[in-house]
Amino acid sequence: MTNTTNIPDSAALVGNYLAAWNETDAQRRRELIDRTFTDHATYLDPLMSGEGRGGIDAMIAAVQEKYPGHVFVAVGAPDAHHDRIRFSWHLVPDGGEPIALGIDFGELAEDGRLRCVTGFLEHV
Amino acid sequence: MTNTTNIPDSAALVGNYLAAWNETDAQRRRELIDRTFTDHATYLDPLMSGEGRGGIDAMIAAVQEKYPGHVFVAVGAPDAHHDRIRFSWHLVPDGGEPIALGIDFGELAEDGRLRCVTGFLEHV
Repeated sequence: MTNTTNIPDSAALVGNYLAAWNETDAQRRRELIDRTFTDHATYLDPLMSGEGRGGIDAMIAAVQEKYPGHVFVAVGAPDAHHDRIRFSWHLVPDGGEPIALGIDFGELAEDGRLRCVTGFLEHV
Repeated sequence: MTNTTNIPDSAALVGNYLAAWNETDAQRRRELIDRTFTDHATYLDPLMSGEGRGGIDAMIAAVQEKYPGHVFVAVGAPDAHHDRIRFSWHLVPDGGEPIALGIDFGELAEDGRLRCVTGFLEHV
């Protein structure tokens, strides 16, 4: 069971992950998603889900439409071991205070991309 | 992907899970493990891993030998959605202050038992 995939730079991975959530240019967003997720990656949080890079891309685009002018900002440093990672983020409106705190848990493929992300949400 | 397994009583599940970690009677511990984990459940944290109920049982027994007189105590309420759960605990020496904070993430089988747990550790 113990996959010993290293996470060489978990901060860069989370940086690209949050950049994908913030990127409203469709082509650049898809490039970030391709860099961050495996082909058949899955995402699931209390409010939404996405399957595969295309599904995750569409899910993120829908969130951007719902929260225009908001950005996802990392909270603290990611924590990782073996092929598992956890990290937190705030959803922040332009010039405002955070409106949500997310705690994401991910599992990585051997190539260091996310193959599965579970999100949990807290009001702030 | 979206498994809609309900977690009818996540507090009871986490209660049994922590009770298993605290139960030093081998037979009662195994009963708690059987109630909490699927047959082929896996556990992985930065320091150890266990596969199957027998492997998880042996792993917990080893922790109890290493930390005699310590107990695992829930911190806050568990948070769950779909078939995913997260919860936190302190490792507390008899009559003392917590020496560790754990953040566990689990995935559940359709019967409501844990089929996969990833633990993360923080010093307190």
